[in-house]
Amino acid sequence: MRPSGRAPDQMRAITIEPRFTRHAEGSVLIGFGDTKVLVTASVEERVPPFLRGKGEGWVTAEYGMLPRATHTRSSREAAKGKQSGRTQEIQRLIGRSLRAVTDLKLLGERQITLDCDVIQADGGTRTASISGAWVALRMAIDGLMRDGKLTTDPLQQKVAAVSCGIYEGTPVLDLDYDEDSNAHADGNFVLLEDGRFAEVQATAEGACYDEEALLRLLRLARMGATEIFAAQDLAVGR
Amino acid sequence: MRPSGRAPDQMRAITIEPRFTRHAEGSVLIGFGDTKVLVTASVEERVPPFLRGKGEGWVTAEYGMLPRATHTRSSREAAKGKQSGRTQEIQRLIGRSLRAVTDLKLLGERQITLDCDVIQADGGTRTASISGAWVALRMAIDGLMRDGKLTTDPLQQKVAAVSCGIYEGTPVLDLDYDEDSNAHADGNFVLLEDGRFAEVQATAEGACYDEEALLRLLRLARMGATEIFAAQDLAVGR
Amino acid sequence: MRPSGRAPDQMRAITIEPRFTRHAEGSVLIGFGDTKVLVTASVEERVPPFLRGKGEGWVTAEYGMLPRATHTRSSREAAKGKQSGRTQEIQRLIGRSLRAVTDLKLLGERQITLDCDVIQADGGTRTASISGAWVALRMAIDGLMRDGKLTTDPLQQKVAAVSCGIYEGTPVLDLDYDEDSNAHADGNFVLLEDGRFAEVQATAEGACYDEEALLRLLRLARMGATEIFAAQDLAVGR
Amino acid sequence: MRPSGRAPDQMRAITIEPRFTRHAEGSVLIGFGDTKVLVTASVEERVPPFLRGKGEGWVTAEYGMLPRATHTRSSREAAKGKQSGRTQEIQRLIGRSLRAVTDLKLLGERQITLDCDVIQADGGTRTASISGAWVALRMAIDGLMRDGKLTTDPLQQKVAAVSCGIYEGTPVLDLDYDEDSNAHADGNFVLLEDGRFAEVQATAEGACYDEEALLRLLRLARMGATEIFAAQDLAVGR
Amino acid sequence: MRPSGRAPDQMRAITIEPRFTRHAEGSVLIGFGDTKVLVTASVEERVPPFLRGKGEGWVTAEYGMLPRATHTRSSREAAKGKQSGRTQEIQRLIGRSLRAVTDLKLLGERQITLDCDVIQADGGTRTASISGAWVALRMAIDGLMRDGKLTTDPLQQKVAAVSCGIYEGTPVLDLDYDEDSNAHADGNFVLLEDGRFAEVQATAEGACYDEEALLRLLRLARMGATEIFAAQDLAVGR
Amino acid sequence: MRPSGRAPDQMRAITIEPRFTRHAEGSVLIGFGDTKVLVTASVEERVPPFLRGKGEGWVTAEYGMLPRATHTRSSREAAKGKQSGRTQEIQRLIGRSLRAVTDLKLLGERQITLDCDVIQADGGTRTASISGAWVALRMAIDGLMRDGKLTTDPLQQKVAAVSCGIYEGTPVLDLDYDEDSNAHADGNFVLLEDGRFAEVQATAEGACYDEEALLRLLRLARMGATEIFAAQDLAVGR
Repeated sequence: MRPSGRAPDQMRAITIEPRFTRHAEGSVLIGFGDTKVLVTASVEERVPPFLRGKGEGWVTAEYGMLPRATHTRSSREAAKGKQSGRTQEIQRLIGRSLRAVTDLKLLGERQITLDCDVIQADGGTRTASISGAWVALRMAIDGLMRDGKLTTDPLQQKVAAVSCGIYEGTPVLDLDYDEDSNAHADGNFVLLEDGRFAEVQATAEGACYDEEALLRLLRLARMGATEIFAAQDLAVGR
Repeated sequence: MRPSGRAPDQMRAITIEPRFTRHAEGSVLIGFGDTKVLVTASVEERVPPFLRGKGEGWVTAEYGMLPRATHTRSSREAAKGKQSGRTQEIQRLIGRSLRAVTDLKLLGERQITLDCDVIQADGGTRTASISGAWVALRMAIDGLMRDGKLTTDPLQQKVAAVSCGIYEGTPVLDLDYDEDSNAHADGNFVLLEDGRFAEVQATAEGACYDEEALLRLLRLARMGATEIFAAQDLAVGR
Repeated sequence: MRPSGRAPDQMRAITIEPRFTRHAEGSVLIGFGDTKVLVTASVEERVPPFLRGKGEGWVTAEYGMLPRATHTRSSREAAKGKQSGRTQEIQRLIGRSLRAVTDLKLLGERQITLDCDVIQADGGTRTASISGAWVALRMAIDGLMRDGKLTTDPLQQKVAAVSCGIYEGTPVLDLDYDEDSNAHADGNFVLLEDGRFAEVQATAEGACYDEEALLRLLRLARMGATEIFAAQDLAVGR
Repeated sequence: MRPSGRAPDQMRAITIEPRFTRHAEGSVLIGFGDTKVLVTASVEERVPPFLRGKGEGWVTAEYGMLPRATHTRSSREAAKGKQSGRTQEIQRLIGRSLRAVTDLKLLGERQITLDCDVIQADGGTRTASISGAWVALRMAIDGLMRDGKLTTDPLQQKVAAVSCGIYEGTPVLDLDYDEDSNAHADGNFVLLEDGRFAEVQATAEGACYDEEALLRLLRLARMGATEIFAAQDLAVGR
Repeated sequence: MRPSGRAPDQMRAITIEPRFTRHAEGSVLIGFGDTKVLVTASVEERVPPFLRGKGEGWVTAEYGMLPRATHTRSSREAAKGKQSGRTQEIQRLIGRSLRAVTDLKLLGERQITLDCDVIQADGGTRTASISGAWVALRMAIDGLMRDGKLTTDPLQQKVAAVSCGIYEGTPVLDLDYDEDSNAHADGNFVLLEDGRFAEVQATAEGACYDEEALLRLLRLARMGATEIFAAQDLAVGR
Repeated sequence: MRPSGRAPDQMRAITIEPRFTRHAEGSVLIGFGDTKVLVTASVEERVPPFLRGKGEGWVTAEYGMLPRATHTRSSREAAKGKQSGRTQEIQRLIGRSLRAVTDLKLLGERQITLDCDVIQADGGTRTASISGAWVALRMAIDGLMRDGKLTTDPLQQKVAAVSCGIYEGTPVLDLDYDEDSNAHADGNFVLLEDGRFAEVQATAEGACYDEEALLRLLRLARMGATEIFAAQDLAVGR
């Protein structure tokens, strides 16, 4: 039995509150149960140096966790003077995932930065970030199209992410913190609406896993993604 | 006339949402109009090195601004690898202000850290932080008393902060961003309920000010503080 | 056709030169074709702070690339003053992979650090690092057993890693630099000799992939791992 | 009674030694009693990026304390790799204070940097820095006018700064280290010759203060400033 | 007697393996006994900012030590976030030594960076680096001449370096680690083929030395350099 | 002819002003002509970690240059966040030079830090620093002996340093900035009163030098050291 009482293939409640803040071109507070992430999309009419003059845009992400988002306070990365390896790994994953569904040539020479700041953490902060970032990106691009800065939509598909893992021998969907810290294997899956994958990452923690278990995790991830896609649709009113 | 249409001595709406997040011993989302700051109070049963073995506690603060809390995105301090001078100045002010109303000996050898993270900025983020930090600190200390870890209340008074400045020649209360960026002088005032000051900081921006103007700002600050004290009372249910 | 003329399921030549340097408890120069990584294993009779007094050991890794290991010189991380996100991601992966086959309780309160320094890069540096690190770790643990510091072998299995990807529509094994920089998807697979996985990471680059493609990559990875296990056996003389 | 035997409204001896070093466009060793600060003004024919092309100049300050300026050695900020919050707060205050009396448009597209390095500390280092910086700035601007680079004087007024505080219940002028470390409240006041303020900062240390006390501190500050203005006049020969 | 059994004026075996790696314009693995340094020369068609537009080139060096090149593991400079004073001192010495034999005007506006990475350390890593760097630089410049980018050879002479010191009262040539850590004085000598010096550095460690001893060290250094010049000739086929 | 009109073997005026600041256990302002360095010696009753419990003391140095000590302002190392390679090289040299004349066992488990801060630079800042550091160290040790903390004097000899170089073909003593920036070779010599050397560093700048030239520089250095020893004697009143 899961500590939360959920069935193995049961997601936590997904909540998406668009326009949570007012300055950003896209802004959303996404919740996977008690995990709450504020995602903003910022449009800038410039690209990083390696893309200058190439007629292409860029989508990138930054990730942070407020010091007391967690059970015990962790130190502030700005005060320590560097981002941890975990933070950098997560923000690279978020950026790659969103670029996987964006046509950067259609975006033109502009950059969209997705800032994902975890307000409250209970497992799955990176997958909630990716799922919420899509909504913020959708809003930002809708704004560019409304303003006539884009005529063809560069955001080609929806993308969603969810974690799955093996908890007490059973593959389960959408690990919360209690499960995550005891899981034997733990994966993050980034999926497109057409069923393809942008990213599969499955890591043994304590016990390695076989191919059958991996396939079970993939099935669970598809189930979770279907729910997230529906919540994204609702949030952007499509 | 103020851009917002407010009277010179009119505060913006003060909103205080306690228990905004669940892990911290104290947590509040405070709003001064469109300025929104999430403040958490974290209790740790240890003190910084300079206080070890002295039987005294410590209250300190950290301050951060989410990259897109502002009109245009500013870079993330964790990514730049250091906190700006402005950030350090603000977090030192918040810590001093809360220590001014806390009996550190009564607190015992423990530290309470007040993390003030600006979700949305529209002027007055440091004063909203101080005012909200008092509520979070009150909640954290109430918890320590409920748990029997403290028998005498170390939090002796309420403390509130508000900015005032001279906008187009007129002293006005609680500057918003439009006013702040055009004010000729700009002050931050930290007040106790008994009318005394914990901190007065008044800075000329473009035009120096005379003593009469300073006294006008002090009067406005008292008016603002009265409203904040009332909102704090409501939030902590006293 | 692959630029190298290899068949889709053909590994590059695997070369393992043990005892390449003399001070480390384990040391190996591993080559996957033109990719050359020097791996050393260093035993220290202390553990990181979070493990002190728990009777357990630790296995960790650091990764670096000599500035001119690559086609054009990249700047030295020591001179820039920080390790890139990519470096940190890779060294975390190497550490996790080796811990997946080590019984840390049997290791006792000591730490083994695997330093993986890329002398020459031609794709697959992280998978060569993991595969070579197993050999260096085996040598270091053999030494501890020879010296009587360990009686039960804490290294339970062999571990190997290989990259696979989709190059011009075809799943291929062991990407070299030319293939890697043009692949549509690109994965790193860490396998145990008993067929289980310690880590699966498959990333879309330009085109997302479906489950069938992922399964093809898993098959190829198993083929590559079999060859690496044989080379590891040869190197350690078992 | 003050530890130094001074009357409550008595400044320490003010000494100003102009041209203490020879390379800088302005240079002064200022002493407030045993506090000694070397201030240099450096003129550069360029402005910071945010001002380029705007036809305006900039005045800025940096502050440092030699490691053994104090009773016990403090570590060197260059060796620690960062400036403390206190250092940044002070140098921001010095810069603002001098900009308050400089017409940046008249200065033209050039920058003057005021380096304030504390040779020996005995309280009031920031106020001595501001008061000395005015002399160095005056010398540098006189040089620009002599060289025909400026025809209208951009330095409009004198500026001086002094600390006042409440020591054993009595408001006193120009705190030295013994007083400063025991004061209940402690303020820094930056004044113009016409009686207006550029900055008022009054901080409770241990006990909050009421408006009457603040007004007493303002009176004392005016008395101190009058003496500093006279010393500045003497130093620049006006 | 020397721990190694060598005569006082006996060098260790000098080994030079050119083209040890394939991407760099020059590459060599040089050995002074058990000290092994990989040196690469990287040509870039740009110069540092202070030389732009002056029609001159630049030769510079960077130095690093793999963490387990030494008897006990030392921490990785990239992970610590800064290069030690020793590292910086050595890389400045290597750069100066090679510039002493290069006509920077003849080199034209390009930079050659010599990366010296110590694979295995047994004393004399900086002198082996300089001696090997000459070979790598020679190869890189030969390449530029072969490609027609240079017509006149800017590399005017050979340069070699060797350490000498006073070990148990006797001046000895080419200190290994055992000798170096017990020597009373220790010098590094950079010589040209014509007998002149580019650099003499002789440091007392435990006992100061007189002029006669210094002259003996100079004699030994000349003997060592002669052997290194011969090995360099062999390596570059001249 | 030298730009300063000095004879080749003529030192600049040496000035030593002891007790320039009051808090440090030793303090001196030393001048070699227009080069002015403030040196303080700070005694601390603790040693660095590598010496704890060994019954030995430590003498170390830090070096800094005020931003406008030079003709044009250089940026502040504390603001840049790191010390340059040059700074580190110099402070290592100063520390070594003073340790060469100190019996660290006699000093006992305490550390003396010599802070050398250049107030005004005109060439020879490192040699003035060493020569002045001896005076500050002498004063600090005299204090320890006066206080009964030391009974046997650990400072065994005087040490002095001076630069010599080849300027327009002529070996000259005590280079000032104009000479230093045009010299063909440039050396720093650290000498003991008994004629032995603690350090010889001679570097070619533009033209290599032969042994005869080196010997001439050694002779000049001895002449300069004699004058410095006399000035040191005067300063400490022996």
